[in-house]
Amino acid sequence: MPITISVLKERPNENRVALSPTVVSKLVKSDYQVLIEQGAGSRAFYRDEAYTDAGAKVVDRGTAVKDATIIATIDQPDDAVIDQMQAGQALLGLLAPLTDVDFVKKLAAKKITALAFELLPRTVSRAQTMDVLSSQASVAGYKAALLAADSFARYFPMMITAAGTAKPAKVLVLGTGVAGLQAIGTAKRLGAMVSGYDIRPASRGEVESLGATFLTTSVSATGEGGYARQLTKEETEQQQAELAGFIAQNNVIITTAQVPGRRPPLLVTQKSVDDAKPGTLFIDLAASDLGGNVAGSKPGTTVTTDSDAQIVGAGDMASQLPASASDMYAKNVQAVITDLTTDGALVFDVDDEVVGDLLVTINGEIISNRLRSAMDLPERKPAVVDTPDEAADDKGAE
Amino acid sequence: MPITISVLKERPNENRVALSPTVVSKLVKSDYQVLIEQGAGSRAFYRDEAYTDAGAKVVDRGTAVKDATIIATIDQPDDAVIDQMQAGQALLGLLAPLTDVDFVKKLAAKKITALAFELLPRTVSRAQTMDVLSSQASVAGYKAALLAADSFARYFPMMITAAGTAKPAKVLVLGTGVAGLQAIGTAKRLGAMVSGYDIRPASRGEVESLGATFLTTSVSATGEGGYARQLTKEETEQQQAELAGFIAQNNVIITTAQVPGRRPPLLVTQKSVDDAKPGTLFIDLAASDLGGNVAGSKPGTTVTTDSDAQIVGAGDMASQLPASASDMYAKNVQAVITDLTTDGALVFDVDDEVVGDLLVTINGEIISNRLRSAMDLPERKPAVVDTPDEAADDKGAE
Repeated sequence: MPITISVLKERPNENRVALSPTVVSKLVKSDYQVLIEQGAGSRAFYRDEAYTDAGAKVVDRGTAVKDATIIATIDQPDDAVIDQMQAGQALLGLLAPLTDVDFVKKLAAKKITALAFELLPRTVSRAQTMDVLSSQASVAGYKAALLAADSFARYFPMMITAAGTAKPAKVLVLGTGVAGLQAIGTAKRLGAMVSGYDIRPASRGEVESLGATFLTTSVSATGEGGYARQLTKEETEQQQAELAGFIAQNNVIITTAQVPGRRPPLLVTQKSVDDAKPGTLFIDLAASDLGGNVAGSKPGTTVTTDSDAQIVGAGDMASQLPASASDMYAKNVQAVITDLTTDGALVFDVDDEVVGDLLVTINGEIISNRLRSAMDLPERKPAVVDTPDEAADDKGAE
Repeated sequence: MPITISVLKERPNENRVALSPTVVSKLVKSDYQVLIEQGAGSRAFYRDEAYTDAGAKVVDRGTAVKDATIIATIDQPDDAVIDQMQAGQALLGLLAPLTDVDFVKKLAAKKITALAFELLPRTVSRAQTMDVLSSQASVAGYKAALLAADSFARYFPMMITAAGTAKPAKVLVLGTGVAGLQAIGTAKRLGAMVSGYDIRPASRGEVESLGATFLTTSVSATGEGGYARQLTKEETEQQQAELAGFIAQNNVIITTAQVPGRRPPLLVTQKSVDDAKPGTLFIDLAASDLGGNVAGSKPGTTVTTDSDAQIVGAGDMASQLPASASDMYAKNVQAVITDLTTDGALVFDVDDEVVGDLLVTINGEIISNRLRSAMDLPERKPAVVDTPDEAADDKGAE
């Protein structure tokens, strides 16, 4: 029996879908069976017919769940899906294991084999093609710059006309990871004057290679895995004060500073928002229920301040470019599933440097050491030990 | 007493304002007095304080109308404003004289000195700095391409990532006047594959100079004043059939074909819309109450078709980039008013090649020969005759 990959329709506020027809077609050629829940791709303009043409079967949700070897999703599936899943079935997606311990416990209790993209060891070269955080951040950065240009009341480029010249917009990007660099590149394409700030001084080269100005403050911090370390209270205040000066000189501020599983750092204080000139536009990619980079940003909405500045809570940018974002996501899913496949079956090697990190749970055990550490569980025994640590196992499955 | 220029708050669906603070500042330095109705610039992010700082007085509407030497507007003012105006006061804006004969008659009856940007002789070089149709079309073309990129579910540029390559979007611009060329330039900036079509073969050079592909059909038509002539029924059907082939090969279609005072030509038929692939995006800059370039387009709204294509009725693009559009418009207003000023007073020379064309009415007479022709009035006598043709005059003022 072939490996069966099922894709479900996401929640109503999520426009993406975990597999695109292009990727389905490749998977089917490689002898996977693909089941697509009816309408799963509709919000990304991928119609059921397109999936059928690519070789998938379009089925109802119940069938997609029941017959799946592995279910690929964007977000956590509904409780009803988890309830319907059987021990040994696999689930792959952005499962938010670092911030939703209850969900992890549920997966363990159900003995679901769960893999979370958030746990991918991003610096391992074999993992590059699986890196959903990177592919979706790239989409988000592009989309944020476009949204900024489309929401801003003025031209981005300099315009020279018969009646006079229009000055280019000044765009500041705070946080120059994958999303920030893509936002910088897109704003530069549109002809804006762009500068980028990052607390990691190593970003300078990347920012300058895009033709933008790199800004620094007296606070610098490089942490693990390419992320910035957490700042002290004094450092945070110092950083915010220095950033206020940069913010006041720009028309459009795009903020992208996120650290998985932590509240995003506040880069734009209430005072900076209050002092902004009328028409200033803030696009907050970190806007979330945990808070954002900009004081007063609200996920999914645009707030107009008393000073006539606008703050766009833009935490869902990848979902707003759904066709391309889904296609990129699907390629990452394909890379994981291909990597897991040995002799026509999915094999989960808990001691593999990539798979062992991706794995949230298998057979009721919590695998990822990063997750175990976040949950205050002891580190898993190294590869030389064959049997899992049963005490920790039981605890994780409570 | 100085010449007093008054600016009113526009209707609620119009975000632009006829003067920006930058231009006000220049006018005040040149000894004009400027009155701004409270809140007139708010939707363009120009606050009352900014006008005051620039040297204008912020007043209520009644005062702005009563004390005006000339009122500068975007659209036709409300009836109440016209009713309040006195004989000899001037009005400058997009007054739609070619399509609203009743309004023209009212202006004549009130003996208002009215100048309409639609009547500007656009090919006269002195008129270039006054050309609102050009400046606003340029804004509209830029904004249309941005709106397209921001509404499209896929990337515009080619993207090369760890997980694979995304193809660039294919953008087709129908009509390559000022708006079309600006849309082409902006879509090119964003990295799309762009082609442009125009019925005037002379457009080829401009389109190709922007790096886009120029498309032609077997129907060609160059008319007066740079506009295309009206096609026969057979030519129209031939053109539509050939365009259908181009449309089917593109993801995004931006249409910009407009002829002042006439219904916009239908370039995208219902069949082309029905045959479009899911996710195809049509941006119709000609969308108006008279109809648009795309079958089924509705001004100000986005229609999703049964085939999952989207048609954006984008007739108000300049209003959607209000700060820049207002600034450009204001420079055009400034150019007209400066041109009209002699020894500290506004002088309307009905026999001047620019002013005579701009003038809708003065002293109850309809001046513009283009307008007279559209209204079936006899042509005005040439400059050597001093007295106006009174018969025509009376008829025009009925």
